[in-house]
Parts: sequence; C-alpha cells; structure tokens
Amino acid sequence: MNGHGYQAWLQVEGLNRMELSTELKGCYEKLLSHIVITDLTLTSHPAAATAVDELKKLAEARFGITPVVASSAELGAGIRLTVSDTSDFNPNEEALLGEEGYRLSATSIGQETGRLTVTGGSPAGLLYGTFHVIRLLLAGEDVSMLQLVERPANPLRLMNQWDNADGSIERGYAGNSIFYEQGRIHADLSRVRDYARLLASVGVNGISINNVNVHAVETTFIQRHMMPEMARIAAIFRAYAIKLYLSVNFASPVELGELRTADPLENDVRNWWAARAEELYAMLPDFGGFLVKADSEHRPGPFTYGRDHADGANMLADALAPHGGIVVWRCFVYNCTQDWRDRSTDRAKAAYDHFTPLDGRFRDNVVLQIKNGPMDFQVREPVSPLLGAMPRTNQIIEFQAAQEYTGQQRHLCYLVPQWKEALSFETYAQGEGSTVSRAVSGQLHNRPLGGIASVSNIGDDAFWTGHPLAQANLYGYGRLAWNPQLTSEEIADEWTKLTFGSSEQARTVIHQMLMSSWPIYESYTAPLGVGWMVTPHTHYGPDVDGYEYSRWGTYHFADRSGIGVNRTTANGTGYTAQYREPHRSGYESVTACPDELLLFFHHVPYEHRLHSGKTIIQHIYDTHFEGAEAAAQLLQAWTGLEGFIDSETYARVQSRHEEQAAHATHWRDVINTYFYRKSGIADERGRKIY
Amino acid sequence: MNGHGYQAWLQVEGLNRMELSTELKGCYEKLLSHIVITDLTLTSHPAAATAVDELKKLAEARFGITPVVASSAELGAGIRLTVSDTSDFNPNEEALLGEEGYRLSATSIGQETGRLTVTGGSPAGLLYGTFHVIRLLLAGEDVSMLQLVERPANPLRLMNQWDNADGSIERGYAGNSIFYEQGRIHADLSRVRDYARLLASVGVNGISINNVNVHAVETTFIQRHMMPEMARIAAIFRAYAIKLYLSVNFASPVELGELRTADPLENDVRNWWAARAEELYAMLPDFGGFLVKADSEHRPGPFTYGRDHADGANMLADALAPHGGIVVWRCFVYNCTQDWRDRSTDRAKAAYDHFTPLDGRFRDNVVLQIKNGPMDFQVREPVSPLLGAMPRTNQIIEFQAAQEYTGQQRHLCYLVPQWKEALSFETYAQGEGSTVSRAVSGQLHNRPLGGIASVSNIGDDAFWTGHPLAQANLYGYGRLAWNPQLTSEEIADEWTKLTFGSSEQARTVIHQMLMSSWPIYESYTAPLGVGWMVTPHTHYGPDVDGYEYSRWGTYHFADRSGIGVNRTTANGTGYTAQYREPHRSGYESVTACPDELLLFFHHVPYEHRLHSGKTIIQHIYDTHFEGAEAAAQLLQAWTGLEGFIDSETYARVQSRHEEQAAHATHWRDVINTYFYRKSGIADERGRKIY
Repeated sequence: MNGHGYQAWLQVEGLNRMELSTELKGCYEKLLSHIVITDLTLTSHPAAATAVDELKKLAEARFGITPVVASSAELGAGIRLTVSDTSDFNPNEEALLGEEGYRLSATSIGQETGRLTVTGGSPAGLLYGTFHVIRLLLAGEDVSMLQLVERPANPLRLMNQWDNADGSIERGYAGNSIFYEQGRIHADLSRVRDYARLLASVGVNGISINNVNVHAVETTFIQRHMMPEMARIAAIFRAYAIKLYLSVNFASPVELGELRTADPLENDVRNWWAARAEELYAMLPDFGGFLVKADSEHRPGPFTYGRDHADGANMLADALAPHGGIVVWRCFVYNCTQDWRDRSTDRAKAAYDHFTPLDGRFRDNVVLQIKNGPMDFQVREPVSPLLGAMPRTNQIIEFQAAQEYTGQQRHLCYLVPQWKEALSFETYAQGEGSTVSRAVSGQLHNRPLGGIASVSNIGDDAFWTGHPLAQANLYGYGRLAWNPQLTSEEIADEWTKLTFGSSEQARTVIHQMLMSSWPIYESYTAPLGVGWMVTPHTHYGPDVDGYEYSRWGTYHFADRSGIGVNRTTANGTGYTAQYREPHRSGYESVTACPDELLLFFHHVPYEHRLHSGKTIIQHIYDTHFEGAEAAAQLLQAWTGLEGFIDSETYARVQSRHEEQAAHATHWRDVINTYFYRKSGIADERGRKIY
Repeated sequence: MNGHGYQAWLQVEGLNRMELSTELKGCYEKLLSHIVITDLTLTSHPAAATAVDELKKLAEARFGITPVVASSAELGAGIRLTVSDTSDFNPNEEALLGEEGYRLSATSIGQETGRLTVTGGSPAGLLYGTFHVIRLLLAGEDVSMLQLVERPANPLRLMNQWDNADGSIERGYAGNSIFYEQGRIHADLSRVRDYARLLASVGVNGISINNVNVHAVETTFIQRHMMPEMARIAAIFRAYAIKLYLSVNFASPVELGELRTADPLENDVRNWWAARAEELYAMLPDFGGFLVKADSEHRPGPFTYGRDHADGANMLADALAPHGGIVVWRCFVYNCTQDWRDRSTDRAKAAYDHFTPLDGRFRDNVVLQIKNGPMDFQVREPVSPLLGAMPRTNQIIEFQAAQEYTGQQRHLCYLVPQWKEALSFETYAQGEGSTVSRAVSGQLHNRPLGGIASVSNIGDDAFWTGHPLAQANLYGYGRLAWNPQLTSEEIADEWTKLTFGSSEQARTVIHQMLMSSWPIYESYTAPLGVGWMVTPHTHYGPDVDGYEYSRWGTYHFADRSGIGVNRTTANGTGYTAQYREPHRSGYESVTACPDELLLFFHHVPYEHRLHSGKTIIQHIYDTHFEGAEAAAQLLQAWTGLEGFIDSETYARVQSRHEEQAAHATHWRDVINTYFYRKSGIADERGRKIY
C-alpha cells in the first residue's frame, strides 16, 4: 500500500506534502548528499542501520538524491551520525543524553561545509534523533540554527495491541489485525514493519502484540514451538528500537496442560515460568517482558489460589529478572458481577482499594499499569486516585488511542487534550508539583521504571486508523509519551504540517477541527462526567439506561428528580476519600466540585445550578443542541477543504463526518428526550425535543 | 438418543409412562396381536406402511408382542386398517372423511373377536387415525366403546423451521439444527425422521425446512445439484404424510447469477422460476411449495421493481400451479428503519395497510401467512386485524412455538391459551361467529386453502425443546391446528398423560404449571400489552428503553406522567380503525378497552384506574411482585415432584425453573425501579423498590 493515508505523517510524496522554498530545498539536498557515520561498526546495530536507511530513503523518495554514505573524520557537508560513547568532541555527552536521548547540532548550514550532527546516547537514541531530523525536514523547518538535546521523560513508552490470533481486534475500529489471521501470524509482515516505523518515528519503545484477554491460541505464544515466529516479529521491531512484549495468561501452566496449578507460590509454577523465560530469552535476548490482566473480568489470576496481585506479579518478575525483563501488571480490577441494586459497592474505588495496600511489595521490575480514570476510558472521568498513591511501586498510566467510548474512529475525537489533563493533574503526593506526569515517569518517587502505555487504534485499514484524522492520536500519543510538556496545540501543529503540509488552509482548518473535537464529542454524549450512556457491548451510540441495570457497576441513577452518583464520603460511596487534599474536599463539596465532573461525584436535582449559572437540565439541553450543531460544523469545515487535499483522504474523512453529524443528532435527540420525559422540565429556549 | 425427553409424548418405556391395569393391558395386547390390512397393496403407500410399522413398534416396545400382519376379510381380533376407497362397508365414507380424516370404530372389544377399525380417507388419514389409536393406548384410555370420526379443521398445518445451513437456528433455543451443519445437510437424518414422527403424531402435514431469511447457501436449495439432497429429506417426511416446503429467496435468479433481474413481470424471470419448479417436481412429485419473506427486514422482493406483493406471489404461484404447489407469502412487512421521533408511523398498521388493498388479486394457490398479532409475537398483543379482512384471499395464521419473546424455553410459557385466544377472536367479518379460527380454516369465506403455521421450537437438544415442558407447545400446536375446538386444558391433559402418565401427582402439578405459566410470564414482564421491554437483539431479559429510541417501530413512550401508545383514530395513529365494530369502538375508548391491552391502544397517566380498580402504576408494582413470587412457586411446585419422574427430566426442568425464578426477580426489580424512578409514585404496600 502506498496511499496518502498509509504513509501517514511520514509521507514523502503525494499532494499533501509540504512544499519547500528553493532555498530550503537546496539546503536540505546539500545536507542529504552525504551521510557520515563516524564509526561504521555502528551499522551492525539494527537501530543505527535503520537510521542510515531512513535518511537514504528520505533523500531518494523526497529529493531524488542518492546520498554518499561514508565514515570520515573530515568535517564536510552532510548529516553526521554518531553515538556518545564514540563521540570525539564531548566526554560528558553520554551522561547528558542517557540511553535514548540525542543531540542535534547544526554547523555552518548554508555554507559548503554545512552539516547537521545527530549524536545518540545509543543506537536507539541515534534513531530517535534521526527521526527528529526527518520530521523537521518533512515539515519544512529551518534547521540552520538547530542546537538541541532531547531525552525522553518516560523510560517506558508502550503500545498495547488488543489483537487476537483469529485476526479480530478487541475494540478495534480500523479493520482486522496486521499481525494475525485465522489463528496464525501473517506470513507477510511488511505492514508490521511499516507500523514499527511509524511508532519509532514518535519514540514508542515497546509493544505488546496480543490482546490482554489471552485466549487459547495466544496462550501458546510463550511455548517453544512459537519462538521462531516470535523471533520473526521481534526482529522487525528491533530494527526500530522497539522491544517486544507478550500478554500472558496467568493460568498458562494449567491451560497448556503442563501443571495442575498456577499458584504463584508453588515451586513447580515458579520453575515453569522460569523455564519459559529461559526459552524466550534464548531466542529473544532483548525481549521486553509480560503484560498481564489478572483476576479481572473473568481472567485467571492469583486470587484462585488465595494469593494477591503482588504474589502473582512478583512470581513472573522473578522469572524475568535474570534476563532484564519486566512485568506490566494491569490495575483494571473490579467486581464485574455487581448487583445494580447494591448502591454501596463502587467500581470507581476498586483499583485503589485493591492495590494501595500492596505498596512496597512489588519487585523493582514490576510496573503497575493504571487507566487514566477510575472507570474505563469514558469521555470524561476524574483522574485515577491510584496514580501517585504508591510511592514504593513503579506505575505507568494507560491511555486508549482506540476510541472505544469516544466515537470509535467514526467520530472525530483528538484525545491529546484529554491525556494532557490527566498528565497535568496534581496528585499532591509530595505537595504541589506532584503531577501525574512526574509520578508515572518515576521522577516523583524516584522509581527505576515508569512511563505511559496506550491501547493502539490501528488495523489493516488503508488509513491505519479508520478515521484518517485519528492518526493524530497515534502520533500524539508517541510525542506525549516522549515529552509530556508538549502542548496539545504543538502536537496538532506538528502532525498537520507533516500530514497536510501543502495547504495552509487545510492545516488551519484541521488544527481547529482537532482542537475542538473532544469538547464537541463530550457535549452531545453523556453529560457532566456521568458516563456510560452507550449501547451495551458495542459501546457505540446512545442508550441511556443501557448499563443502568447491569452487572458492570456503571450507573447514573437518573430519576424524575435528579441524576448522578453520590460518591461523597459524607453519605455516598466514599470514593472522594481516595484523593489527597485539596481534591478530596473539592470533589466532596457539591458547590466546589468542577461542573464537568459534578455527576460523577454527586446526585443532584435537575434544577441544581452549575458554576456556569445553568441548571443541570438546561445544561444538558444546551450542550446537546450545541454539540450536534458543532458536529455539523465540523462536516462543513471539512467540506470546505475539497480540492486542497488528496481525494481519497478527503472522501474518507467526509463520509466519517457525515456519519458523525447524523449520529450526533441522534445522540442529541435521545438524550434530550430521555431527560425531558423524565424531568418534565421544558427547554428554556423552546427548541424541539421529541 | 433414547432418553425420556427424546421420546417426548410417544414414550413407550421408562419411568414416566402410564401404568396400565391388567385388564387394559390384556385388551391392548389382544388388539395388537393382529394387524389386519384390508388391502396389502396399500402398504406401497409410504404413509400406510408407516401406520403398520408404528403399530408394530408399539406392540413390540411397549408390550413385547410381535403382531401378525395380514390381509384378511375374516373379522378376527386385532386392529384393522383400511382406507375409504377400499372400504367394503360404507360407500359414503370417502365423502365423510375427506382426504385426511379417519374413522375409529370399535367392535366387540373384550371378546375374542374384538377389533378396532381405522378407516382413513387416504393413506395419510389412515396414519393420523393410527396415531390417534397409539395416543389412546399410550395414555391408557378405554377404547372399548370407541366410535368417532375426525377430520382436520385446517387443510394446511405447517411447521416453519428457521434453521440456517450453517447449523444455527434463528431464534432457536434448543441447540443447533437437526437438518444442517457447516453448510451441509446432515449425513445422518435419523433425528429428522424422529422429528417427522412427532409432527405426524399430532397431524402436522407440511414443513418448510429453512429459515425465511434465506442466506447464500440456502438460496441454492432450489438448484438442480441440490435435488438429491432435497429428495433425501422429502422421502423421510413423505413416510409421515408431511409435505416438504422450501423458503426461497425472491432474488434467487439474480443471487444465483443467472439473470440480471428478479422482476416478477419479466418473462425471463417467470420462465426461470417455472423451470425451477419443473426440476423440483421431477424429483419431488409431492413437493409442497415455497414460503416467502419478501420486502421485509431487508429481504428482497417485488418492491425493487415497482411491483407489489400480488405480482410477486402470483409469479411464483404460476410456476408452481401446474404441479399442484402453493406459495405461502408472509405478511410480516413493515418499515424497519423507522425514525423513533415520528409518532405518526405505526408499525402495527403496516400489514393491514400493505395487504388489504390487494384482496382478490392473489391466485388461488397463494396463501398469506399472518402473525397472530400486528407486532411480533409479544407476550400480549391484540389479534391482527388483517385476519379475516380479505374475503377473496387465502390466509393462514402464524404462531411462534419458539419462545422468542416469551422466555426462550428457559422460562415456562405454555402458549396454547394464547393461541386459543387468537383463534377464538371474533373478527365480525360476517357478523357474529366469524372467528379467526373460521377465517383461517377457509370456512368463513369459503376459501380453497387455509390453516395454521408455527415457527418450530426444536433443535438438537436431548429434550428437543430446551425446557422439557416446552414440548407441550409443539404437541399443542399440532393438536390445535387439527382441531381448534380443543381447549387448552384438554391439550395439557393429553400431553401430561402421555409424557408423565405414571404419576397422578406429577400430572396434576404439571397441568397446573402449564396453565398458569403464560399469565405468570406476562405478569413480571412488559405490562398491559405495551410489549418490547426486552434486551435488543437477544430479546431475553428486561431493558425497558432497549427498543425505545430504535428504528424498529417499537415504543412505549413512557414519561414521568404516563405510558402507552395512542393508537386511537381520534387523535392517535388510527390503528383502531382497522378493526370492525364493536372492536373498533371498544379499543378506541379508554374506558372500554380491555385492561390487558390498554397500553397497546392508549397513552394514559400512571394514576389512571383500570377496570380492576387499580391504578396503572399500582398494577405494575402488584403484578411484578406477584409474578416473581409465582415464578418462585413454579420452582417450588416442581421441586415437590422429585422422585415422581425420571431424574434427567427432573434435573433439567429444575435448573430452568431456578433460572426463571431468579430472572423473574431481576425483571421485577428492573421494571418496578424504572417506573418508580420515572413516576415518583410509591408502592401502596411499601414493598422494596430499588
């Protein structure tokens, strides 16, 4: 495949690429004429070889140049690639850059000897630096004064595939798996390679390639006969400095018929996993480790044997430790067979209640993976109080680029602003400045491991992500994981320049579309943080009571007088007590609680006035009328771009926005009608409610 | 298979069979000692051969006797089989019995020459008469004075399988198909034979063997290469006097790639179908005909070509007429992409509006198949006003033994009383006495064809029907189609005697369970005829708003003040106008309308008083508390039968009733909570509502 959508933000040809001035083009061509690699032995490192290769491909495909690749001490024109331990000009470079960092340094650009030096802290760092240069060149940036050092804020920058061996993707909205079909790994993995390239270009450094719900076939992935297949995939990712991880079934020894127990404290079990790790690392010396969903939503786990999460995670960690592997243990654990009649049990409290008592008990090569909110990737949730609450435990935050509850890549929802809110959230774990971002990077509590993970949003779709603009979430996730200080706007800018560079108008419009999309989606769906008003199972489209009488712990308690979940400590579920001050008091108080989360924390009458001055019911009506209108405007804005961008992308986005506009109207009418019928309160502005 | 459940109401061995007195046993054994067939050439008729065979099997399996089978004019002891055209003692017999009727006549029973003569109007009649004798003998009835003539009220007594070639059954609740697996017809059709036997034993005379939604594989069933397979199945049913029908895809000529149109007025299309009919009848001379779902729920039909249902049905009828075949054309036609915001469109009106204007236009070998109610097999609906409304058109009524909306064979729901209500309904088409029963039999308007069809409730389950007591619906359907005058109680009595004959207590309890089951199911589910408060797609379990904002035309319009659909002519959808007087006025009037249908016809406040004296809301609370309690009592009643019946059946029924009791509680609480939250009106009796 070679369409615009497939090239994504690395497109070197086609209508949408940035036009370059003659001057800039000349400058770039001169730089790309020579690729100087200070130590040719470096190219035996796959990631360093990839760096050279990517520059060559760029030169050839974008500029029609075949660069001279040489090792030379001579300071001639070109791009110079080096790593700090072979550096001849700065002995402190290694400490400065760390393993994955890099320095970009321009000298005399525009002159005959103009050169751009990329110094990596390692071959991986060199690759990241090279991709940084490539992004700059594709975006038409001036590199003449370039002097910068970058190193990632987060040691772990992980992508989670929820791909199943049968080729389906759980919560996949962009076709089938690029990894599997009909129980087998694809013979042709060229798409996996192209995906690895996209991930590496934004700094992702680890990928788990199978669903956290590990079914029968995927359970065998850790068996010896599967090692050659795993090695085939690992080799592809290794070339892009991405480590391979596997989701494992905690009950593997039993499920595979080898032991009669999976009790983590049994020696047989410990030895069994140690032997699996031995086998894995024999074939895959740089294997990342295991991702585990245990004792959650009917997945097996240590509870079966009267053990706890620490027992389970540590057992696996001990098996991996001798080889440098880690265990990523998910905290998405709650009672999924709740009785809706029981108002005392609160799913939002579950992760914190399960895990905080275990702080200090996890091995140093275990990281807990915690969803951004306490429920499940709703359009609006408070930030999980578990983040930052375990000073002696490694934590990473989990985002979901896959838009399960945010329009399923049929509606536009640029999620970077949502993720930014979570990362900027103050935990107050060590007083002010104790942001989630610092907690999960490991910095706050001086932890050896930390980072971010995201559920992937790609499939075998020609545009990777279904909605072409959903590529911005994949791009943004990687950039944010690398540098959480970047703003949503900066990321949107970078991405639109790379993807729609040729048209100033397209860039402006698309930037605005992205930035407005999350608030728009929120406005016409579930109001004020209450969540869950979606069709059960599919999670697409409105069904206000769809999860109201279910076993999933997902309720809004709307009656004829009011709505919302009382999670106060005074007379509710007590969830607010999981936060530190001042959040605890802030959320506890119906007057102090932020509007957008009011119904998450409080059950209030429809006539209750928000800080905005509106009543709850009028807020619902207003946001839903406005949201549907805004969705229509997104379509209109896009329609104005016809001719400014390639026709395939235009048509795909157009059809998605037609669907979004119509579906937003459906959302508006269902939600408004539901609340009008229930409250009996008319819209102040007399608009049509059915 | 040979379990109690598998033998169903024809069980000859095992714990549950009726015990016989010594006297009765002696009498039966004497009768079964000789089977006298007056004309041995008769046994070349498959149905007559089956009659002999069934008597032999009974004698052997139940009494350990091997009967002497002989042709003899001598009037010795035994069972004498004859058909009227070979009869030597009553020249008017043929006219009296018709094609399918029979006479049972006992002479000198108890004496040495005691005999029982079965005279059939044809081999088929002989088979039905023989099964009548078998039922009497299995039930331990005194046959000494037997003198009776029976002929079926309905010429067509059809069973509709909704089986798919992949082995699944649409709306099947008893396992997979006994006909198909993985796209092929089962190699071993012995279960089909056993099913044919059960059907014939209660008089069913036609079966369509594939789903009315005809998918790709089933579309090929009318192709020449499939004829040997069809012949294999037809031969089995022929032995039981059951004609084979096929559901056909109206777009077959296009779907099979043979023509570019399926326009019923195109000669190519007409010739194509005529050729298919030729081929079919060459292999299957007694083929019944086609069942068609057209222009309904996305099935193709004549509308595509600007033609109407009469054009479509007549085209197929013309193809089949030379061979004696018929077309069964379903009237389940409505707009399934309705906008819930549009309150003027009423799905209940659709069938009548579509079909009555076509009265007189259908061929004599077309029958319209009309569901009992205007919606879709809800637990309570009014009777379809289309029944009896087309005096110049053949009609049959469609029931659904498969309990799609009535508990899915996990809850007990004996449907015969519901069907009886529909059949006894006065259409007033020709004044008083114009019952639906007379309309569909053909009697009312002197139509050449008429009858009843039912969607089957069986699968490859060991008990055939999932819930063992659901066999009563299969039995009852056949008996009622034969004789609509039978009462629900009589049918329940017959069936319990045959199935649980050994225990007086079991019979009494099960009879009561059956008779109370429909009202119980109604009481804890959707109230007062409003219907549809079920989980979308699966149709199992409560979801009050599940179909409220959908495209299916299925709404209750509950708001904080009231509930129900205004279908009046005065200011509603005008559906009431489809009924003749006095129903029209009766349904139109909120005071005259029967309580159990009030919310089907009217939108009323929760405080509205029913004829029962209760308000709507209190009725909802009361019936739901009582219904859940009654479901618990069903379980308790069954539990009291432990030891009185075989343990397999006991255990299966027990587990179903445990589920029903628990699920009825869930229904109760969801419905009561929904309406309490919406109305704000407390239960007068202060019971727990969540």
